[in-house]
Amino acid sequence: MAIEIERKFLVDQEKWQLVTKPEAMHFRQGYIFSDEKKTIRVRVTDTEAYITIKGSTAGFSRSEFEYTIPATDGVQLLDNFATSELEKYRYRITYAGKLWEVDEFLGDNQGLLMAEIELGSEDEEFELPPWVTTEVTGDDRYYNARLSIYPFKNW
Amino acid sequence: MAIEIERKFLVDQEKWQLVTKPEAMHFRQGYIFSDEKKTIRVRVTDTEAYITIKGSTAGFSRSEFEYTIPATDGVQLLDNFATSELEKYRYRITYAGKLWEVDEFLGDNQGLLMAEIELGSEDEEFELPPWVTTEVTGDDRYYNARLSIYPFKNW
Repeated sequence: MAIEIERKFLVDQEKWQLVTKPEAMHFRQGYIFSDEKKTIRVRVTDTEAYITIKGSTAGFSRSEFEYTIPATDGVQLLDNFATSELEKYRYRITYAGKLWEVDEFLGDNQGLLMAEIELGSEDEEFELPPWVTTEVTGDDRYYNARLSIYPFKNW
Repeated sequence: MAIEIERKFLVDQEKWQLVTKPEAMHFRQGYIFSDEKKTIRVRVTDTEAYITIKGSTAGFSRSEFEYTIPATDGVQLLDNFATSELEKYRYRITYAGKLWEVDEFLGDNQGLLMAEIELGSEDEEFELPPWVTTEVTGDDRYYNARLSIYPFKNW
């Protein structure tokens, strides 16, 4: 088990356009089960797939168990068992020595742009890139599991 | 994904006592989620653990996705996320060239003794060992997920 300590921020569309970015990865992900206590997610990237069990969030932290699985299994699990799905592009970008992951959502969540930083401890300090805006850590509307059911376009 | 084709039988307690058996493995298993369409099971053996997603049964068959995970993760997943659990000893025994798995249930399912054979196709022929009795394939009372919620002692 890992403890995932993560903070999430909205991203300014205009400023983000101007950032030099690496190539994005495409993620298709769905939820086999999700309630307040746990989510079971399957994510399929361009090359791999993962099954991930996450616990509920306390502060900035939640327990996370993640396993790499064959990409073909990932697609079959989504097709057979996912109750909701979303798609996004993910950019990995380093700012001030820290890795940021910026998700550009697709489909019914198009228009939503969100940045995450994973931390080693809840009080780890980091610099905010100029393209991030409001912090949304802990706002459950922005949980990916929630976005797959209540997408951004319906807000 | 594998397709699991399996038939299940009750076992005669007295005849089973007389069979020369290998050492049993101990299984602790729990269900992170279970409904009519799918079950998500975590099994911890003496040495390993597995996460398994199974679809619903049609005939003798169901889809199955199984991944080996660290044993410590298995215990943590059960402790944190299982909604129901059971324990059993499993014996693997060959009869007439086929592998049988005989489960001796513990705890609230003590007294239940069930044998399973995995087949390559639904019409594969096999010999019944003298210690098996009634076939219970497809009887949902005998599904392990169900036994973890409605144990044998309450029948």
